[in-house]
Amino acid sequence: MVSSLSLSGCALRRELVGANATDIDGKFYRGVLCSSRVSKQFLVSRSVCSFSDRVLQARFFSNGKSLRWDCDGNRFLGNGVHCCALSTENHNSSFAIGQKFQLEDVIEAQQFDRDILSAIFEVAREMENIEKNSFGSQVLKGYLMATLFYEPSTRTRLSFESAMKRLGGEVLTTENAREFSSAAKGETLEDTIRTVEGYSDIIVMRHFEGGAAKRAAATAGIPVINAGDGPGQHPTQALLDVYTIEREIGRLDGIRVGLVGDLANGRTVRSLAYLLSKYQDVKIYFVAPEVVKMKDDIKDYLTSKGVEWEESVDLMEVASKCDIVYQTRIQKERFGERIDLYEEARGKYIVDRNVLSAMQKHAVVMHPLPRLDEITVEVDEDPRAAYFRQAKNGLYIRMALLKLLLVGW
Amino acid sequence: MVSSLSLSGCALRRELVGANATDIDGKFYRGVLCSSRVSKQFLVSRSVCSFSDRVLQARFFSNGKSLRWDCDGNRFLGNGVHCCALSTENHNSSFAIGQKFQLEDVIEAQQFDRDILSAIFEVAREMENIEKNSFGSQVLKGYLMATLFYEPSTRTRLSFESAMKRLGGEVLTTENAREFSSAAKGETLEDTIRTVEGYSDIIVMRHFEGGAAKRAAATAGIPVINAGDGPGQHPTQALLDVYTIEREIGRLDGIRVGLVGDLANGRTVRSLAYLLSKYQDVKIYFVAPEVVKMKDDIKDYLTSKGVEWEESVDLMEVASKCDIVYQTRIQKERFGERIDLYEEARGKYIVDRNVLSAMQKHAVVMHPLPRLDEITVEVDEDPRAAYFRQAKNGLYIRMALLKLLLVGW
Amino acid sequence: MVSSLSLSGCALRRELVGANATDIDGKFYRGVLCSSRVSKQFLVSRSVCSFSDRVLQARFFSNGKSLRWDCDGNRFLGNGVHCCALSTENHNSSFAIGQKFQLEDVIEAQQFDRDILSAIFEVAREMENIEKNSFGSQVLKGYLMATLFYEPSTRTRLSFESAMKRLGGEVLTTENAREFSSAAKGETLEDTIRTVEGYSDIIVMRHFEGGAAKRAAATAGIPVINAGDGPGQHPTQALLDVYTIEREIGRLDGIRVGLVGDLANGRTVRSLAYLLSKYQDVKIYFVAPEVVKMKDDIKDYLTSKGVEWEESVDLMEVASKCDIVYQTRIQKERFGERIDLYEEARGKYIVDRNVLSAMQKHAVVMHPLPRLDEITVEVDEDPRAAYFRQAKNGLYIRMALLKLLLVGW
Repeated sequence: MVSSLSLSGCALRRELVGANATDIDGKFYRGVLCSSRVSKQFLVSRSVCSFSDRVLQARFFSNGKSLRWDCDGNRFLGNGVHCCALSTENHNSSFAIGQKFQLEDVIEAQQFDRDILSAIFEVAREMENIEKNSFGSQVLKGYLMATLFYEPSTRTRLSFESAMKRLGGEVLTTENAREFSSAAKGETLEDTIRTVEGYSDIIVMRHFEGGAAKRAAATAGIPVINAGDGPGQHPTQALLDVYTIEREIGRLDGIRVGLVGDLANGRTVRSLAYLLSKYQDVKIYFVAPEVVKMKDDIKDYLTSKGVEWEESVDLMEVASKCDIVYQTRIQKERFGERIDLYEEARGKYIVDRNVLSAMQKHAVVMHPLPRLDEITVEVDEDPRAAYFRQAKNGLYIRMALLKLLLVGW
Repeated sequence: MVSSLSLSGCALRRELVGANATDIDGKFYRGVLCSSRVSKQFLVSRSVCSFSDRVLQARFFSNGKSLRWDCDGNRFLGNGVHCCALSTENHNSSFAIGQKFQLEDVIEAQQFDRDILSAIFEVAREMENIEKNSFGSQVLKGYLMATLFYEPSTRTRLSFESAMKRLGGEVLTTENAREFSSAAKGETLEDTIRTVEGYSDIIVMRHFEGGAAKRAAATAGIPVINAGDGPGQHPTQALLDVYTIEREIGRLDGIRVGLVGDLANGRTVRSLAYLLSKYQDVKIYFVAPEVVKMKDDIKDYLTSKGVEWEESVDLMEVASKCDIVYQTRIQKERFGERIDLYEEARGKYIVDRNVLSAMQKHAVVMHPLPRLDEITVEVDEDPRAAYFRQAKNGLYIRMALLKLLLVGW
Repeated sequence: MVSSLSLSGCALRRELVGANATDIDGKFYRGVLCSSRVSKQFLVSRSVCSFSDRVLQARFFSNGKSLRWDCDGNRFLGNGVHCCALSTENHNSSFAIGQKFQLEDVIEAQQFDRDILSAIFEVAREMENIEKNSFGSQVLKGYLMATLFYEPSTRTRLSFESAMKRLGGEVLTTENAREFSSAAKGETLEDTIRTVEGYSDIIVMRHFEGGAAKRAAATAGIPVINAGDGPGQHPTQALLDVYTIEREIGRLDGIRVGLVGDLANGRTVRSLAYLLSKYQDVKIYFVAPEVVKMKDDIKDYLTSKGVEWEESVDLMEVASKCDIVYQTRIQKERFGERIDLYEEARGKYIVDRNVLSAMQKHAVVMHPLPRLDEITVEVDEDPRAAYFRQAKNGLYIRMALLKLLLVGW
């Protein structure tokens, strides 16, 4: 038996609460309860909690503490939210949800399937339309994000901090998180996380070691977002790439994508290839200098998933066929002393006015930025240059993730 | 003759004002006036200003400027707050306060006596219960804290910044304050303070020189909190330690405390010993490797205050007797080239499962963090491991101090 | 034909919108529309938009996007603001503005004429009276400023960030912006600006290269403020200097100004001399050690503008004649290995109690800070020591500029 509920009362100025509900069978539901500002009464909106007959096990996203919640009208006093359930009714249909997934942490691109991606993108679209000082722009008011960066990455950090602040949240910043665990002091990552989770509601972490984000998430009682861990994952970049394709081309099935440049070392293109395999009838072209060709593991993976792929040395021809030309930077630091190899690779495939002229009208050029001269400046003026819009999409994706992790759908 | 007052009007959205009142005899009172949001009328809450018959000399915490305030109904226009006194009545009892002390700066542990500690802890307890987006969470709205760090201390800085933001305040951050007074430029600390006080309402300062906080406070017209100055003081750490003992054990009189580890160099344990001397019937056990034994000055001080103490080499026995086992890190940097002495000292007293098993059920393990291996990870799971709760208590103590310094009781 | 308009509706909590209007002749107008909170209806205040008969081309300051706006009652949905025009009337006089100038960016002192300075100073005066948590203190609520510092300048950064937060705005901070364009990655300034403008509403930039601010402003679709670019400009310092003279002396025409110290290298005194030439009957005295005398270009410029100037070696005499004694620091770093020349220049002209005693009662001492010993500490106590008030004025000038650039007059 499943019930729905309506809430009222609540602390002054409360506008939004998020809760998880577990029913007696152990199923989890997530709900967002919004207040109507006029009546000062909480009305259920967007989606609601379903729960078992008398007891709701609610976990509030802000602090990860579990709270017992007596459903038949008694008050409950949470750590962070104070409400009372005014009435409960048995209900089975319209209010029952459960079809939405649970987003606990963002650790790696592999955790997302097609449905989840689609759901996140829907929220990102809403984010694009949030107006300054509107209700939506205050959805994370009172929430505190810690940006725990073990190595500086100004671009990524500013994007996350902007996302948090655009939603009314606040930020604690550190770009010298290494000091926490300096050689001299030797604190473990786990201990650092246990300290920082006491100060904040969500942790955005950049680390120099692969797997660090997973360790942090395993320790933290609050959500963790991986903002890049060593050579490993940078899942928000992967999400914003796919989101940009959908926004620019209008679909993800049936697309033709040219991946150009450093395909051996770029985690961006590797993650993108991985995520594209979730869609129907995708064809991928690899265009890379010999020394930085796409590695076999991804090729084999694509083949196993039935994704068609092809290597090419002719950028012009690929450009003419593709919906997306995804250019990447040849990373000098990967070549060590072999500057000669770097210089050779670097000049080989440039996206310029000629490439543009070969491209179809609806096609776009993408790039994860920063760029050097692998896309010439003259391309910027063309409406098909999508890379700055792509960077901006990173903001919307991060807004969406912060909202989903902190207050749910 | 003392009067009470009620206020109304006030600038749009005003919710909280703090004022000092001086009566004709020159006595100072501090009050917090809260608005009721419903009536838009200011009601006196928590504590109020008493003042002399016709004239209130009000100092607003945010800017330190003195304002004349005509009490019989005339408007007054402050620098920061705009109100008018609607009515005044003569009153002697319930509204008259003055029994609360004046907290101007937080410079050193020695400034606090037992009553003040108790009062601060009471406010810290309230802080534990502040709910997201509640009235209490906005108590420092509009206030600006400058974190002026002459050396980085990410842990302390994040704790203060979280405290400020949890109360609705804003933060200006600098971890490279040394640049202000670089060798090349040579600005004095006093000049820096005079500049920064123009930008903010309160200064939280970390400095590499002992006594710097006292100098800053002597210069500043706004409150200063010492977040550690050189080998000298770190008073908020001392406060949070005592607060944690009270929260965990339920009392401060009649406790048995084992101080373990580096007792010679750790300013933490030295301050703690100092503060514990203010309580009745405290017994302290020192358990330290030979090279880092507690120094005579503290032992003599305790003796002079009638505090019983004892040195021991048997951690198991001490653990079985104590309410608190306060472990500390052996600081490698203190040993210079004598790595051999460091290694010997370091491994000597470890808190592990065996020590836990000797401890009483109600006793707890504390540690100022970061820890290395002087507490083994297996201890973390035991409910008596209080060190992460202790770190969190630092947040509440700092919230309490910020509130007290900026808007008063 | 020009029309006025009234607006209503608008997103919940909207309090302030700013718009540019273009009439059919291509003229631009800027307006600020404030809501009355009581009626929840937008009323035109301060200044309004005029516009052509049926079509208003509105650009919102926050994002730089152009929006078509149908004036006869139809909705329009902006990127950042959502309103509908309820009624339009033909109108020619009281609402028509256009007499206010358009402030797009703040790049160099030369961009300001006397009228603009006067208008900015008027706004700065308003800023001095903004009360904590008042309506005015929320005028930039929802706006996000990026401080993009390619070299650290804590003093300037904190001043800007304080200004933004005092007006209710939020800040994204970076003091290591060089990382964006590190040698290894090689991103252009233009690309960095295009990325950062996606995250923020205004950019405050400090750069190590002269001309960088101009390049940034040419690229950005949002306002840029130059917070110092190399040996070039630092226009907000120049503005706050002139503002301080007006505040302290009460006028800018007919003043006598002594510029003392390093006149060869200090961009401050050079900019100040430049701006003072815009006023009537100004006389400037140069008092500098031989090695750092004022250069001919400024002297020639002043002569060409009819500004009287004179060189002197007698600080006491100059002090007795001047309204302002503007002291500056001899910058050691300019002398390279010639420490002897530095030491000689440095001790030559000190403002001390003797100089004070020669000064007139209404005259003041200014200094851009930081100071070393070119003003002795004993001077600080004298009410004529204006340098800390001058630093504080920097806050008000920056508040004024942020307001003007983001929401207009």
